[in-house]
Amino acid sequence: MEKTFKANGRIWLEIDGEKVLGPGRVELLERIQASGSLRQAALQMKMSYKQAWDMINHLNLHVGIPVLISHRGGKGGGRAEVTEQGQILIEQYYILQQKFRDFLASNS
Amino acid sequence: MEKTFKANGRIWLEIDGEKVLGPGRVELLERIQASGSLRQAALQMKMSYKQAWDMINHLNLHVGIPVLISHRGGKGGGRAEVTEQGQILIEQYYILQQKFRDFLASNS
Repeated sequence: MEKTFKANGRIWLEIDGEKVLGPGRVELLERIQASGSLRQAALQMKMSYKQAWDMINHLNLHVGIPVLISHRGGKGGGRAEVTEQGQILIEQYYILQQKFRDFLASNS
Repeated sequence: MEKTFKANGRIWLEIDGEKVLGPGRVELLERIQASGSLRQAALQMKMSYKQAWDMINHLNLHVGIPVLISHRGGKGGGRAEVTEQGQILIEQYYILQQKFRDFLASNS
Protein backbone atom coordinates (compact mmCIF):
# COMPACT_ATOMS: atom_id res chain seq x y z
CA MET A 1 0.00 0.00 0.00
CA GLU A 2 1.20 3.51 -0.79
CA LYS A 3 -0.27 5.18 2.28
CA THR A 4 -0.36 4.12 5.89
CA PHE A 5 -3.74 2.96 7.05
CA LYS A 6 -4.70 3.25 10.65
CA ALA A 7 -7.53 1.31 12.24
CA ASN A 8 -9.95 3.35 14.28
CA GLY A 9 -13.43 2.79 15.66
CA ARG A 10 -15.97 3.18 18.36
CA ILE A 11 -17.24 0.77 21.01
CA TRP A 12 -20.18 0.59 23.35
CA LEU A 13 -21.89 -1.77 25.76
CA GLU A 14 -25.16 -3.47 24.90
CA ILE A 15 -27.78 -5.31 26.93
CA ASP A 16 -30.09 -7.66 25.04
CA GLY A 17 -28.88 -6.19 21.74
CA GLU A 18 -29.70 -2.65 22.87
CA LYS A 19 -26.92 -0.05 22.94
CA VAL A 20 -26.88 1.23 26.53
CA LEU A 21 -23.49 2.79 27.21
CA GLY A 22 -21.15 4.58 24.82
CA PRO A 23 -18.72 7.51 25.19
CA GLY A 24 -21.56 10.09 25.25
CA ARG A 25 -23.37 8.53 28.18
CA VAL A 26 -20.17 7.94 30.09
CA GLU A 27 -19.36 11.62 29.69
CA LEU A 28 -22.86 12.56 30.84
CA LEU A 29 -22.63 10.39 33.96
CA GLU A 30 -19.23 11.81 34.82
CA ARG A 31 -20.45 15.37 34.41
CA ILE A 32 -23.45 14.63 36.62
CA GLN A 33 -21.11 13.12 39.19
CA ALA A 34 -18.83 16.18 39.09
CA SER A 35 -21.58 18.82 39.16
CA GLY A 36 -24.20 16.95 41.19
CA SER A 37 -26.75 18.13 38.65
CA LEU A 38 -28.35 16.56 35.60
CA ARG A 39 -29.35 20.01 34.40
CA GLN A 40 -25.78 21.32 34.65
CA ALA A 41 -24.36 18.24 32.94
CA ALA A 42 -26.90 18.54 30.10
CA LEU A 43 -26.03 22.23 29.69
CA GLN A 44 -22.31 21.48 29.54
CA MET A 45 -22.94 18.91 26.81
CA LYS A 46 -25.25 21.24 24.88
CA MET A 47 -28.23 18.93 25.16
CA SER A 48 -31.67 19.57 26.57
CA TYR A 49 -32.64 18.46 30.07
CA LYS A 50 -35.14 16.10 28.46
CA GLN A 51 -32.53 14.54 26.17
CA ALA A 52 -30.20 13.95 29.11
CA TRP A 53 -33.00 12.58 31.24
CA ASP A 54 -34.12 10.23 28.45
CA MET A 55 -30.58 8.90 28.12
CA ILE A 56 -30.34 8.22 31.85
CA ASN A 57 -33.81 6.70 31.93
CA HIS A 58 -32.98 4.38 29.06
CA LEU A 59 -29.85 3.32 30.90
CA ASN A 60 -31.66 2.79 34.23
CA LEU A 61 -34.32 0.77 32.46
CA HIS A 62 -31.92 -1.59 30.70
CA VAL A 63 -29.41 -2.03 33.49
CA GLY A 64 -32.30 -2.94 35.79
CA ILE A 65 -30.80 -1.09 38.76
CA PRO A 66 -30.73 2.73 38.92
CA VAL A 67 -27.43 4.21 37.80
CA LEU A 68 -28.51 7.64 39.00
CA ILE A 69 -30.59 8.80 41.94
CA SER A 70 -32.06 12.24 42.50
CA HIS A 71 -32.26 13.85 45.93
CA ARG A 72 -35.17 16.27 45.79
CA GLY A 73 -35.26 19.72 47.37
CA GLY A 74 -32.44 21.81 48.79
CA LYS A 75 -30.62 24.71 47.16
CA GLY A 76 -30.84 24.73 43.36
CA GLY A 77 -33.60 22.12 43.33
CA GLY A 78 -32.03 18.85 44.40
CA ARG A 79 -28.89 16.91 43.68
CA ALA A 80 -28.22 14.01 41.33
CA GLU A 81 -25.87 11.23 42.29
CA VAL A 82 -24.36 8.38 40.29
CA THR A 83 -24.96 5.13 42.17
CA GLU A 84 -22.30 2.53 42.93
CA GLN A 85 -23.81 0.49 40.08
CA GLY A 86 -23.36 3.47 37.78
CA GLN A 87 -19.74 3.83 38.83
CA ILE A 88 -19.04 0.15 38.22
CA LEU A 89 -20.53 0.60 34.77
CA ILE A 90 -18.27 3.56 34.00
CA GLU A 91 -15.25 1.56 35.16
CA GLN A 92 -16.26 -1.38 32.97
CA TYR A 93 -16.52 0.93 30.02
CA TYR A 94 -13.05 2.38 30.60
CA ILE A 95 -11.51 -1.06 30.94
CA LEU A 96 -13.10 -2.06 27.63
CA GLN A 97 -12.02 1.21 26.01
CA GLN A 98 -8.41 0.67 27.09
CA LYS A 99 -8.42 -2.85 25.67
CA PHE A 100 -9.90 -1.50 22.45
CA ARG A 101 -7.15 1.12 22.21
CA ASP A 102 -4.56 -1.62 22.66
CA PHE A 103 -6.31 -3.61 19.94
CA LEU A 104 -6.25 -0.65 17.56
CA ALA A 105 -2.60 0.09 18.33
CA SER A 106 -1.60 -3.51 17.60
CA ASN A 107 -3.50 -3.46 14.28
CA SER A 108 -2.19 -0.26 12.75
CA MET B 1 -23.87 -6.73 37.52
CA GLU B 2 -27.47 -7.82 37.22
CA LYS B 3 -27.59 -7.96 33.45
CA THR B 4 -25.14 -9.30 30.93
CA PHE B 5 -23.30 -6.61 29.04
CA LYS B 6 -21.98 -7.28 25.59
CA ALA B 7 -19.31 -5.19 23.91
CA ASN B 8 -20.10 -4.06 20.40
CA GLY B 9 -18.71 -1.43 18.05
CA ARG B 10 -17.72 -0.29 14.63
CA ILE B 11 -14.32 0.01 12.96
CA TRP B 12 -12.92 1.72 9.91
CA LEU B 13 -9.62 2.53 8.25
CA GLU B 14 -8.15 6.01 8.30
CA ILE B 15 -5.40 7.73 6.35
CA ASP B 16 -3.88 10.85 7.91
CA GLY B 17 -6.71 10.95 10.46
CA GLU B 18 -9.35 10.88 7.71
CA LYS B 19 -11.90 8.07 7.71
CA VAL B 20 -11.55 6.43 4.31
CA LEU B 21 -12.98 2.93 4.51
CA GLY B 22 -15.82 1.60 6.65
CA PRO B 23 -18.51 -1.05 6.13
CA GLY B 24 -20.56 1.23 3.82
CA ARG B 25 -17.76 1.83 1.35
CA VAL B 26 -16.71 -1.80 1.40
CA GLU B 27 -20.28 -2.74 0.49
CA LEU B 28 -20.30 -0.12 -2.27
CA LEU B 29 -17.04 -1.41 -3.77
CA GLU B 30 -18.28 -4.99 -3.65
CA ARG B 31 -21.54 -4.08 -5.33
CA ILE B 32 -19.65 -2.20 -8.04
CA GLN B 33 -17.42 -5.23 -8.50
CA ALA B 34 -20.43 -7.55 -8.76
CA SER B 35 -22.54 -5.36 -11.08
CA GLY B 36 -19.75 -3.66 -13.02
CA SER B 37 -21.64 -0.42 -12.54
CA LEU B 38 -21.37 2.46 -10.08
CA ARG B 39 -24.90 3.50 -10.98
CA GLN B 40 -26.31 0.04 -10.24
CA ALA B 41 -24.40 -0.23 -6.97
CA ALA B 42 -25.63 3.21 -5.87
CA LEU B 43 -29.20 2.23 -6.74
CA GLN B 44 -28.93 -1.02 -4.77
CA MET B 45 -27.73 0.94 -1.73
CA LYS B 46 -30.43 3.58 -2.14
CA MET B 47 -27.96 6.41 -2.62
CA SER B 48 -27.63 8.88 -5.47
CA TYR B 49 -25.06 8.42 -8.20
CA LYS B 50 -23.39 11.61 -6.96
CA GLN B 51 -23.18 10.34 -3.37
CA ALA B 52 -21.62 7.09 -4.51
CA TRP B 53 -19.23 8.88 -6.81
CA ASP B 54 -18.19 11.29 -4.04
CA MET B 55 -17.45 8.35 -1.74
CA ILE B 56 -15.29 6.67 -4.37
CA ASN B 57 -13.57 9.94 -5.22
CA HIS B 58 -12.76 10.60 -1.59
CA LEU B 59 -11.32 7.10 -1.32
CA ASN B 60 -9.27 7.44 -4.55
CA LEU B 61 -7.94 10.77 -3.37
CA HIS B 62 -6.79 9.57 0.03
CA VAL B 63 -5.45 6.19 -0.98
CA GLY B 64 -3.38 7.94 -3.66
CA ILE B 65 -3.94 5.17 -6.19
CA PRO B 66 -7.32 4.65 -7.91
CA VAL B 67 -9.43 1.98 -6.24
CA LEU B 68 -11.90 2.12 -9.12
CA ILE B 69 -11.49 2.65 -12.83
CA SER B 70 -14.22 3.40 -15.36
CA HIS B 71 -14.18 2.00 -18.86
CA ARG B 72 -16.14 4.43 -21.02
CA GLY B 73 -18.57 3.50 -23.77
CA GLY B 74 -20.08 0.17 -24.67
CA LYS B 75 -23.54 -1.14 -23.82
CA GLY B 76 -25.18 0.64 -20.88
CA GLY B 77 -22.59 3.42 -20.87
CA GLY B 78 -19.35 1.91 -19.67
CA ARG B 79 -18.21 -0.44 -16.97
CA ALA B 80 -16.66 0.23 -13.57
CA GLU B 81 -13.97 -2.02 -12.18
CA VAL B 82 -12.40 -2.26 -8.75
CA THR B 83 -8.61 -2.16 -9.14
CA GLU B 84 -6.20 -4.61 -7.54
CA GLN B 85 -5.44 -1.86 -5.02
CA GLY B 86 -9.14 -1.62 -4.22
CA GLN B 87 -9.34 -5.37 -3.73
CA ILE B 88 -6.35 -5.37 -1.41
CA LEU B 89 -8.09 -2.64 0.57
CA ILE B 90 -11.29 -4.68 0.88
CA GLU B 91 -9.26 -7.69 2.05
CA GLN B 92 -7.44 -5.57 4.62
CA TYR B 93 -10.76 -4.35 5.93
CA TYR B 94 -12.13 -7.88 6.29
CA ILE B 95 -9.01 -9.07 8.11
CA LEU B 96 -9.37 -6.17 10.52
CA GLN B 97 -13.09 -6.81 10.92
CA GLN B 98 -12.49 -10.47 11.77
CA LYS B 99 -9.88 -9.51 14.38
CA PHE B 100 -12.31 -6.98 15.80
CA ARG B 101 -15.04 -9.64 16.06
CA ASP B 102 -12.60 -11.89 17.91
CA PHE B 103 -11.78 -8.98 20.20
CA LEU B 104 -15.44 -8.35 20.95
CA ALA B 105 -16.12 -12.04 21.54
CA SER B 106 -13.26 -12.27 24.03
CA ASN B 107 -14.50 -9.19 25.91
CA SER B 108 -18.15 -10.07 26.37
